[in-house]
Amino acid sequence: MPNPTAAMLVIGDEILSGRTRDANMHYLAGELTKAGIDLKEVRVVSDEGPAIVAAVNALRETYDTVFTSGGIGPTHDDITADNIAAAFGVHIDIRDDARALLQAHYDRQGSEFNAARQRMARIPDGATLIDNPVSIAPGFTLGNVHVMAGVPSVFQAMVASVLPGLTGGAPLLSQSLRINRGEGEIAGPLSELAQAYPDLSIGSYPFQKNGVFGANIVIRGQDGAQVDAAMTRLAALFPA
Amino acid sequence: MPNPTAAMLVIGDEILSGRTRDANMHYLAGELTKAGIDLKEVRVVSDEGPAIVAAVNALRETYDTVFTSGGIGPTHDDITADNIAAAFGVHIDIRDDARALLQAHYDRQGSEFNAARQRMARIPDGATLIDNPVSIAPGFTLGNVHVMAGVPSVFQAMVASVLPGLTGGAPLLSQSLRINRGEGEIAGPLSELAQAYPDLSIGSYPFQKNGVFGANIVIRGQDGAQVDAAMTRLAALFPA
Repeated sequence: MPNPTAAMLVIGDEILSGRTRDANMHYLAGELTKAGIDLKEVRVVSDEGPAIVAAVNALRETYDTVFTSGGIGPTHDDITADNIAAAFGVHIDIRDDARALLQAHYDRQGSEFNAARQRMARIPDGATLIDNPVSIAPGFTLGNVHVMAGVPSVFQAMVASVLPGLTGGAPLLSQSLRINRGEGEIAGPLSELAQAYPDLSIGSYPFQKNGVFGANIVIRGQDGAQVDAAMTRLAALFPA
Repeated sequence: MPNPTAAMLVIGDEILSGRTRDANMHYLAGELTKAGIDLKEVRVVSDEGPAIVAAVNALRETYDTVFTSGGIGPTHDDITADNIAAAFGVHIDIRDDARALLQAHYDRQGSEFNAARQRMARIPDGATLIDNPVSIAPGFTLGNVHVMAGVPSVFQAMVASVLPGLTGGAPLLSQSLRINRGEGEIAGPLSELAQAYPDLSIGSYPFQKNGVFGANIVIRGQDGAQVDAAMTRLAALFPA
């Protein structure tokens, strides 16, 4: 049976302007691979309502699960929750359970639970909350879409809250071999190896370091014995 | 006049599996911002033909310029050039000018210009070559799509080859202020500031470090005097 599929939507002008280097995509990719869920597509869009609505609707219709990051804080540029509600065509307002969580948090801190902070209790109708042990303000799950924060420590905590509830497939096993020869020299035999193992994915990732060209060859598959066998043949083709 | 728009398409299973952390998106985002071209969307897709064709067609119809990275090397998993040709509905084959570049390069090296390496001379009809001073194998431009390598040093060299030929807009100026207070405390006044300067983009990027919550506020715009004025008001609102 094929693994379940997933997509990610990163929301934030700061990524597209080059101000911030996204860290959440790489983190989520690794976690999903371990869980046996195939991340098939990532999109990064700006803090603009129509862009968010179009992307989330395209992705949730195509893939089993969608993860979003960014845009659920208290400031004026945090517009993700409202646009997820718009994408699903559901109502959104401050919800009692989310408000209670935040009220208790700010009471403990002795901080004011002001109008801006109350924005973080805006949850679309029909959503369930995602636990945020780092900074309390919850994410939420609506349909197959998990809406999470952009701050990496909070994003990672929310991924940990969500992943155990998802059905994974067989984790992808992988082995890699570094070959200090240009891709052009190894491509022919590598292509024959890939044809001999149609159930495996064999990728070649070239590098160039200090003027030396080489490639890391990665063999991935769900059957460990097949991965072992292919790696043995690869190592024999290109002895160190 | 609004700035020209751009999108990026990153092609590669290694990014989606979490094996490799993409570096090209962040690099391109910074270069485009300096050039006054607005990067509006990024997509990451796997090494699968239909995914590449669908994404490149969606992006080239929506944005002024599209940049792709990855999948133009000599190995069996390098399928970008053929799928760009498919997306445009044009023929692709080994082209004399690209072959001559590569032949001369491998002659100089004393390496064989074998069948795998000749794949890198496959260029869609109607494309112009993008210079690759690092490893010779060219990228190409077809219509408004610039097809470039995934290896960061080569990608960056190709961006340098392409950017001077593009028409940019007014570069985006930005100033930022770090505020060591939670977003919830500053969100109200910040929203009023954003409303007072509708031509500026005011973003709040929260951080959490050693248990302290704060936010970097970034004010962006094309009019330096307006950015200065808004930053002066911001600093007065939140004295250090």
